[in-house]
Amino acid sequence: MESKLPGVGTTIFTVMSQLAQQHGAINLSQGFPDFPCDPVLLQAVTQAMQDGHNQYAPMPGLPRLREVLARKLEAAYGQAYDPEHQITVTAGATQALYTAITALIQPGDEVLLFEPAYDSYGPAIRLNGGIEQRISLRPPQYAIDWTEVQRRVTPRTRLLILNNPNNPSTAMLSADDLQQLRTLLQQWPQLYVLSDEVYEHIVFDGAAHQSLARDPLLASRSMLVYSFGKTFHATGWKIGYCAGPADWMQEFRRVHQFLVFSVNTPMQHALANYLQTPAHYLALPAFYQAKRDRFVAAMVTSRFVLLPSRGTYFQLARYDRISDIPDTEFAQWLTREHGVAVIPLSAFHADGTDHGIIRFCFAKQDATLDAATSRLCRV
Amino acid sequence: MESKLPGVGTTIFTVMSQLAQQHGAINLSQGFPDFPCDPVLLQAVTQAMQDGHNQYAPMPGLPRLREVLARKLEAAYGQAYDPEHQITVTAGATQALYTAITALIQPGDEVLLFEPAYDSYGPAIRLNGGIEQRISLRPPQYAIDWTEVQRRVTPRTRLLILNNPNNPSTAMLSADDLQQLRTLLQQWPQLYVLSDEVYEHIVFDGAAHQSLARDPLLASRSMLVYSFGKTFHATGWKIGYCAGPADWMQEFRRVHQFLVFSVNTPMQHALANYLQTPAHYLALPAFYQAKRDRFVAAMVTSRFVLLPSRGTYFQLARYDRISDIPDTEFAQWLTREHGVAVIPLSAFHADGTDHGIIRFCFAKQDATLDAATSRLCRV
Ligand SMILES: CSCCC(=O)C(=O)O
Ligand SMILES: CSCCC(=O)C(=O)O
Repeated sequence: MESKLPGVGTTIFTVMSQLAQQHGAINLSQGFPDFPCDPVLLQAVTQAMQDGHNQYAPMPGLPRLREVLARKLEAAYGQAYDPEHQITVTAGATQALYTAITALIQPGDEVLLFEPAYDSYGPAIRLNGGIEQRISLRPPQYAIDWTEVQRRVTPRTRLLILNNPNNPSTAMLSADDLQQLRTLLQQWPQLYVLSDEVYEHIVFDGAAHQSLARDPLLASRSMLVYSFGKTFHATGWKIGYCAGPADWMQEFRRVHQFLVFSVNTPMQHALANYLQTPAHYLALPAFYQAKRDRFVAAMVTSRFVLLPSRGTYFQLARYDRISDIPDTEFAQWLTREHGVAVIPLSAFHADGTDHGIIRFCFAKQDATLDAATSRLCRV
Repeated sequence: MESKLPGVGTTIFTVMSQLAQQHGAINLSQGFPDFPCDPVLLQAVTQAMQDGHNQYAPMPGLPRLREVLARKLEAAYGQAYDPEHQITVTAGATQALYTAITALIQPGDEVLLFEPAYDSYGPAIRLNGGIEQRISLRPPQYAIDWTEVQRRVTPRTRLLILNNPNNPSTAMLSADDLQQLRTLLQQWPQLYVLSDEVYEHIVFDGAAHQSLARDPLLASRSMLVYSFGKTFHATGWKIGYCAGPADWMQEFRRVHQFLVFSVNTPMQHALANYLQTPAHYLALPAFYQAKRDRFVAAMVTSRFVLLPSRGTYFQLARYDRISDIPDTEFAQWLTREHGVAVIPLSAFHADGTDHGIIRFCFAKQDATLDAATSRLCRV
């Protein structure tokens, strides 16, 4: 059978998690917490099920949930979103990304994205007949060179994909980046932005997440994608949402209704309740910063050279003092020989370029982090 | 913004459910039960959450769940499916349908489907560049004319979509239909089948569901789609699965992993446990047949003419003794004036042809059915 995604294998996250299991390694590869969700949230799901909320939710999501999300967006970023026409609940952020691309991209449209890039963007573009245009960002800052972006945009560029804070580089857009993006959108009226902001609440050292929702012009041309799994330590629930301009959202929903129709009802009820208490997500930066600091402090005596981690629950590291083998091999070797699974950075590059960098996930219990760092310090 | 689904509005199920709510009508339109799920199943979800099963499930689905599904398929239809390579858990049957089509259909490929047709098939085909070829089936039998099918298949026909038992006609394939399909597939080696069997357990009068899994040749060329929501009275959980040949499933998973990545973890655990007791689904035919019989008996004194309901939780009816307005108007009128919401059959036809037929959903508590039929008998 001819493949529509030739050369695409199982995602690196699945591959490395499986390898971790095979070797009984500590899994710092795929990004997910190994600590429990808040029992209050679990209880809210149980309650919703018992209250009989087990049939189809409305196609765009529970109105009550969309309303609290609109209030949350306005409180955080000062932008008013109409829950009726501008917010849709999705079966995870990945489905939101895929659906936003499907709704917008016609065969032959060009899509600009930055590498390192999350591995779902490319296939979603290609399956919809779009053409990827990739721009490489450089360590340790991984900052966007807007002159290069200007050079690469053409009248056929329909979409620019941003991931802010960035997985895996942890780079975050600055207020100046937002200004540069404004200029670009003013210049190119056909251009839209898909802004993957699933780590919005995981930013460190007092930084403020620069959501594109902060600027009315950017907001009017951008689909913003968020994830409850990442914010509430429940990556397996597969619920997220997106917010964007009404015209794009209308096309989004036309696709969404035939792609999944609607999203888990009892969990939408539970989240609508749980979100009434902002402390449930406002505590996240401090929570994860403590984990980052613990990980970084313990790694000081290791031979890994850590890059700055400014947000997300990831940490990049060079290993050139240990080995000069390609990162994919190094990641496998580390899993097998030292019992710590990681992600090779090359997985975030379409051409598989080796950068000699690996990614750790520190969304783990302190005990897990301590066990992992003590193994890593022996490498 | 240019639409990739021009002319496609909000699905009729959403429209009619909203209208029902607006008018406080009894909702016999969108297909979902108004009675509770089994508390045993709800408790299993609570337990899974408390046991910490809240992070990403494996991309193709929980191994334990896929294994019990393979056993279930073998017990019911005598076909061995390898859970490792031939079964994938999805975010509902709609996502399985969309993904199966995306994985298979290249731009320009022709897809044969039968009308009345569930409303998601067409948009999924078009969004992937496929070309719909529709064949009309006729009441009251809605049987497939295989000579007509033979006439319409060309070397460019890549896929044939079946829905068995059929929503909304309730038609079911016979052993002879399976034989005809065998002949067709032997003749056309490029042809595959997407078999939407979400109502597999809702068949009446002692009939045996003729799954395509019953025949090795058919099974080797068909993706079968199933729904836990329909079988376990939890349409809002949005979990289903599909089973098919390894080559198609490989391409399916390549798409699936970038479309949703994985599916709700605690509910997969709960379903894996719940499915250990076959009585949980084997009781379904008798349960729904009693509802059908109750509905049909109460409607005897009405001016509606009921068509045979042979499976699914739907019932078609003519209303020509009451009115000669188009079915869409009639459905709205019935909702507004008589407080019973239904689906017009024209919604299942791409060109919106009026057939003077409406669809009732009888997946309702006896009290709801009694209230509805007493209103309908006054029309
Ligand atoms: C969807 S599995 C991958 C989780 C994740 O976002 C990551 O590890 O980068
Ligand atoms: C996905 S909403 C529609 C439910 C259903 O299958 C129907 O009513 O036909």
